[in-house]
Amino acid sequence: MRFLWIFAHPERQSLNGSLLTEGLNALREQGDEYRVSDLYAMGWKAVADADDFATAGLERRLFLGAEQERAFQQGVLSDDIREEHRKIEWADVLVFQFPLWWFGPPAILKGWFDRVLVQGYGFGIKGPDGRTRRYGDGGLAGKRALIITSVGARESGFGPRGIHGPVEEVLFPLLHGTFWYTGMAPLPPFVVYGADRCTEPEYTRTASDLRERLRTLPATAPVPYRPESGGSYDEALVLRPELAPSLRGLEVHRTT
Amino acid sequence: MRFLWIFAHPERQSLNGSLLTEGLNALREQGDEYRVSDLYAMGWKAVADADDFATAGLERRLFLGAEQERAFQQGVLSDDIREEHRKIEWADVLVFQFPLWWFGPPAILKGWFDRVLVQGYGFGIKGPDGRTRRYGDGGLAGKRALIITSVGARESGFGPRGIHGPVEEVLFPLLHGTFWYTGMAPLPPFVVYGADRCTEPEYTRTASDLRERLRTLPATAPVPYRPESGGSYDEALVLRPELAPSLRGLEVHRTT
Repeated sequence: MRFLWIFAHPERQSLNGSLLTEGLNALREQGDEYRVSDLYAMGWKAVADADDFATAGLERRLFLGAEQERAFQQGVLSDDIREEHRKIEWADVLVFQFPLWWFGPPAILKGWFDRVLVQGYGFGIKGPDGRTRRYGDGGLAGKRALIITSVGARESGFGPRGIHGPVEEVLFPLLHGTFWYTGMAPLPPFVVYGADRCTEPEYTRTASDLRERLRTLPATAPVPYRPESGGSYDEALVLRPELAPSLRGLEVHRTT
Repeated sequence: MRFLWIFAHPERQSLNGSLLTEGLNALREQGDEYRVSDLYAMGWKAVADADDFATAGLERRLFLGAEQERAFQQGVLSDDIREEHRKIEWADVLVFQFPLWWFGPPAILKGWFDRVLVQGYGFGIKGPDGRTRRYGDGGLAGKRALIITSVGARESGFGPRGIHGPVEEVLFPLLHGTFWYTGMAPLPPFVVYGADRCTEPEYTRTASDLRERLRTLPATAPVPYRPESGGSYDEALVLRPELAPSLRGLEVHRTT
C-alpha cells in the first residue's frame, strides 16, 4: 500500500519524532511505500487566504471557498497545495500524526485541511444522481485515514465518562467531519496517553503497538459511521427515528 | 463590560464582517468598551514554534510547552503574544468570531489558542490545595467566552440527531476543552446557519438576534459544565457512577 504520512510536530527529537521513524521503518520492512509531509520542516503555510491562488488582480470581495474551487478547476492553486494533491492522489492511506493541542490538531495541520481539501476537490462534488457526495463518499473516497496523536493526560480521562470526553467524540470533527465527509474510511485513532511521562518500557510497548497497527491496517475495520446516501437520514439530514431510537448526540452516527 | 473581540475571517466585506460591525455598534450603544483582534488584518502568526520566545540560542531539543511556560514566566514571549495577554487581562468577555471550517476554527484562530494560552498562563496553575486549577477554574477564571460562528449548512443538520452532530458537541473542544478548561464560563454559541444563502431579511433578523444576545449577555446562563474540583469526578477523572447514571459521551459533563 502507499502511505502519505502528514507529520505536524515542531521537533523531530521527540516522542512523536521517534514514533514517526519507527512507523516509517515498519512500513519499509513490510514492503509498503510512503511519502512524508513534515509540515514544520516544510515551513507549511497554515493560513488560508488570497495568496493561495492566482487572483489576476482580485480587487473584488473575497469569497474564499468559491475562489479556492475556481482556482482548483483552473489549475492555479499555489504550488504547495497542488503538490499535496499529487501526494494524496498517489496514496491509499493518509496518516495524520500530531500532538493534541486544545483537543484538536495544531494550527499548522488545521491549515493543511483548510487549504488542501478545497471545494470541488475534497467535497462539493455531485454524483450521477445530482446529489452532493458526502459522508462516506466524496473526493477522497477509497482512501483510509489514520490519526496518530499524543496527549499528556491519562487514558481514563478520555474514556466513555472521562472528563475530557471519549477520545473518538473529541476527534469527531476530524474523523467524521473531515475524513468521512470527504469519503475516506476513518480508522480507529492510535492515541499515546501520558506522553509527557513516557518511560523507556512504555515507549517500547507503544512502538510495538504502532508497528502492529500498521501491519494489520489493511484488515482494520473503520469506525462504522453511517453514509449520508444510505437512506439513514431524512431530507433535513436528521437521522430517521427508527434508527438508534431515543438516542442523541455523536454516537447515533455509528451503526454499532 | 469590557469585550475582547477576536475576529478570524479573511474578508471584512462579508456576512461575518457585517456582523462584526453590527456587534461593535451594539456594544458602543449599550455603553460597553471593546477591543478587537482582527487576526487576518494583524497578519497574526498561526504556527507555534521556537520563534515565539527568546531562546538565547536554544540548540537543545525543543519542548514547546515547557519553553512557552518558561518564556511566559520570564516575560520573554514574543510581543504579539504579550499584547494578546494584555488585552485578555483587560477584558471581561472574550468573543471568538469565525466561519466554521472543517467543523472547527480556521487555522489562524487555532494558532491563537496554541500560542496565547500557554502553560502557566491559561492553564497548569496550581491552587492553594496543590491541585491544578482546571475545568471551571484556571488562569482565565472570571471571564466569559462567546463563540459567534457561521456555517453553510441548515440548522437541522446540527440538531440533536443531525448528521453533522449537535453544534454544542461539535464545538466541545472549544467550549469545554478550551474555555471551561482555562476557567472561563462558556456561553451558548451564537450560530448563523445557511450562511452561504443569507438573504436581506435573514440578515436583518440575524443582526437583530446578535444585538439581543449582546444586550442580554451579562444575564445569560453559561453552558452548565461540571467543575473538576466539585467532587463529581474520581481520581482517574471519570464521572462518578451516581451522576448521570448509565449515560456516556459528551453530554454527561453537563449538569442539566
